[in-house]
Amino acid sequence: MSSPYESLLKSVREIGQLESVESLLDWDLETHMPPNGLKARAEQLSIMARLVHDRRTSPHLGELLGTLNGDAADPVQATNIRETRRTYDRAVKVPVELVGKIASVSTHAKAAWARARKDSDFTQFAPHLSELLELKREVADRIGHDGERYDALLSEFEPGAQTAQVAEVFAELRGPLSKFVTQLNQSSTRPDPSILCRRFPAAAQEKLARTLAAAIGFDFKSGRLDVSTHPFCSGSTPHDVRLTTRYQEDFFPAAIFGTLHEAGHGVYEQGLDAEHMFTPMGSAISLGIHESQSRLWENMVGRSRPFWEHFYPECKAAFAESFGDVSLDQFVGAINTVQPSLIRVEADEVTYNLHIILRFELEREMIAGRLDVADIPEAWNTKTKELLGVSPPDDANGCLQDIHWSMGTFGYFPTYALGNLYAAQFHAAAHRAIPDLTQRIAAGDFRTLHEWLRTNIYRNGQRYRAGELVELVTGQPLSIEPFMAYLREKFSPFYGL
Amino acid sequence: MSSPYESLLKSVREIGQLESVESLLDWDLETHMPPNGLKARAEQLSIMARLVHDRRTSPHLGELLGTLNGDAADPVQATNIRETRRTYDRAVKVPVELVGKIASVSTHAKAAWARARKDSDFTQFAPHLSELLELKREVADRIGHDGERYDALLSEFEPGAQTAQVAEVFAELRGPLSKFVTQLNQSSTRPDPSILCRRFPAAAQEKLARTLAAAIGFDFKSGRLDVSTHPFCSGSTPHDVRLTTRYQEDFFPAAIFGTLHEAGHGVYEQGLDAEHMFTPMGSAISLGIHESQSRLWENMVGRSRPFWEHFYPECKAAFAESFGDVSLDQFVGAINTVQPSLIRVEADEVTYNLHIILRFELEREMIAGRLDVADIPEAWNTKTKELLGVSPPDDANGCLQDIHWSMGTFGYFPTYALGNLYAAQFHAAAHRAIPDLTQRIAAGDFRTLHEWLRTNIYRNGQRYRAGELVELVTGQPLSIEPFMAYLREKFSPFYGL
Repeated sequence: MSSPYESLLKSVREIGQLESVESLLDWDLETHMPPNGLKARAEQLSIMARLVHDRRTSPHLGELLGTLNGDAADPVQATNIRETRRTYDRAVKVPVELVGKIASVSTHAKAAWARARKDSDFTQFAPHLSELLELKREVADRIGHDGERYDALLSEFEPGAQTAQVAEVFAELRGPLSKFVTQLNQSSTRPDPSILCRRFPAAAQEKLARTLAAAIGFDFKSGRLDVSTHPFCSGSTPHDVRLTTRYQEDFFPAAIFGTLHEAGHGVYEQGLDAEHMFTPMGSAISLGIHESQSRLWENMVGRSRPFWEHFYPECKAAFAESFGDVSLDQFVGAINTVQPSLIRVEADEVTYNLHIILRFELEREMIAGRLDVADIPEAWNTKTKELLGVSPPDDANGCLQDIHWSMGTFGYFPTYALGNLYAAQFHAAAHRAIPDLTQRIAAGDFRTLHEWLRTNIYRNGQRYRAGELVELVTGQPLSIEPFMAYLREKFSPFYGL
Repeated sequence: MSSPYESLLKSVREIGQLESVESLLDWDLETHMPPNGLKARAEQLSIMARLVHDRRTSPHLGELLGTLNGDAADPVQATNIRETRRTYDRAVKVPVELVGKIASVSTHAKAAWARARKDSDFTQFAPHLSELLELKREVADRIGHDGERYDALLSEFEPGAQTAQVAEVFAELRGPLSKFVTQLNQSSTRPDPSILCRRFPAAAQEKLARTLAAAIGFDFKSGRLDVSTHPFCSGSTPHDVRLTTRYQEDFFPAAIFGTLHEAGHGVYEQGLDAEHMFTPMGSAISLGIHESQSRLWENMVGRSRPFWEHFYPECKAAFAESFGDVSLDQFVGAINTVQPSLIRVEADEVTYNLHIILRFELEREMIAGRLDVADIPEAWNTKTKELLGVSPPDDANGCLQDIHWSMGTFGYFPTYALGNLYAAQFHAAAHRAIPDLTQRIAAGDFRTLHEWLRTNIYRNGQRYRAGELVELVTGQPLSIEPFMAYLREKFSPFYGL
């Protein structure tokens, strides 16, 4: 006879195995599936989703969780029980009919959004958005909250995060960040990014991208790099993590920093404890912590001068025609150009969080019912001007630019900004713990940082909530200071401030 | 309320969807999975296999089949009920413990076989083979038979086929075929195959392989061609069929005819009726019929003179360095060289069936318990000399060459030879139905033959058993005559007979 905990673990592992199969079906859909395969793939994904949902909400799992109500002494057991209970509670609270209804409404909403964006006409999308908001409010009420419905949605992506606390941090950040962007923007000194728009053959980009990913610790014996329209990292197990990127021959940063970003996600997945594969102790904490790892490697390491002190000679040789007349300083300046713009996905690391704050502030009001759907375009444009100093000429370049809302995804955007803040805190803590880290990076030693992240973050699985982990690892709660200090120290010299 | 038949169909479709997921997991394992992914992949395959087995043997399915006992008037319904009953009956008769036991014994047997082959020492493999034979006899007894246990095993791969009938046909074939091989072998006139061992760059081979596959009707919008160690065709649905091949730069036939072979399987899968996807009416009949389609396109079309009248100019231009001095006649002769040899997988289309007859005759005796395992090497060597005129120097080149027995696979080999016989009958019937087929092929028109096969074979799904289909389409029961006539007509000129 196995113990209730062993039975729980067996069920949880099976769910994880089935989810990892879903993950492969999705990866294949985006990378290798022949175009006509879509219909059957939808059926395959649908049956797998049903199998997972049935297991996630099974009475057997509920009974086991009932028996395991007490606190387990062993932290591994405690984590696995706590997190399984969390996902079980959420899953049983939302009726399968409501999930199905959202999926169906969202299918139409996505099509309407695509048309609306094409015509730059928000009114075509508005009724669908209203319907989705109503349904997501119902989801929030089913899950339960203390008056702030957004909490229930946010916690799907960032367990334990509180809307009020996030709002407070973002409110603290928006003023100084916006002011810093204005300062940079008004300076007459600035890097020249046009050198990044020369010619960069895809094959040479791929070679460099693979070199950089491997250098920061991505293990190609336990992973792959392929091509897809939208880059992503699909991590089904620590031993099989799949990155994608896209090569733009007339824009150097897309594939190179895109790969470093996905490889940052990838080393986190590969660094999870394989002994706990398919269980919470072997899983990533939250989207915010995941994003902290991609941003740390992409921006804080990958766009730093020391990183390119090591790699620029190889890079220059690989793209001799385009970079032959470009110095290391010119190159590092170019990849760190700050330019307030309308489109989030093209934003640099300084202005990025302003795009997120804008979305978070609007989403919170929308879910609370304090912002009418009809008023979204005006609110969007006003906030864009206020935060970034630019004005969208139309809704296609404004409130219709992102697909997320048409998918019924609310509470997801803030994890991007949280990721940037977490990353800066981890980055500062790593530099305190490894005093010669800068020199190590310039010398091509990324293993020391990788090991530090592995020990302090990856190996903990879901043992701590994001906020707890940040405090544990960095010695302070979530704060804007390390992020602002990092930005000021890094960007001021490029802009002669 | 859905009818019992609709409920049956729903269950059957779900099984098919899950099997198609298994198929993708296998394909990925062979083509793209990073090496460290194996352990988790084994767990994924194991849970999927359990889900499929649970559904295949579910009491619900049994009850539905009980209600549907009568003959359905509609041929589609009749087919789906009959074939679902067949697989259900087989599945419930073999206890899951026995299936597990065979899987476990076979894991050790495969390892022992690999060592035994390396050391060329049959005694290392013998005890494992004895154990597997004992277990497979138990499977046969559970499934049931009329005294000939081999029937129960054969019917897993070739439903409806009778061992006695297969034995009779093979007995008829062995004499004339063996004699024809001797005649060819004794002739002083013979083609020169050495031109096929020159240099053929992989990229140019891939281009030609894709051209040929597309020409015979393989639709790349509903399929792919990748690289794997052992070529295969993985057809999860008619809209997503995946071929693999392997490029040998110093041996022209491997990738080119390998691709044509797999594409032959592929056009069959793509030609199945998508309306009946995931049900018996939308599935291939048997391994023998499947092999008939691969062999027909690979050998009867793909190694014919008319085929290369159309393609040789392009081929010669692609490999100008190697084929510059090679005439069409020299080329067609070279790809049709007959050479009795020890190894089945390297055999040409004339000697191939002799290798199969040898295995079938031994397997039948082994399962019946009339041939002691210890006597296998001697029996193998005697039959090889008798059928092919050559003698294995050791067991590695003799009875240890194939992996099949170590996997507990008995009753599989004869489907290869049946495929060749079926192919010749279909090929002859197609030429009767399309009198100018030879000229059409020489002119690059493969659509007419493809359409004929589609109408007469692919679209029938599992409506007919293999034997019935052959008789229906060709007007005669399984016979060796079309095969021998085809061989004599094609090969005699190359050998001056």
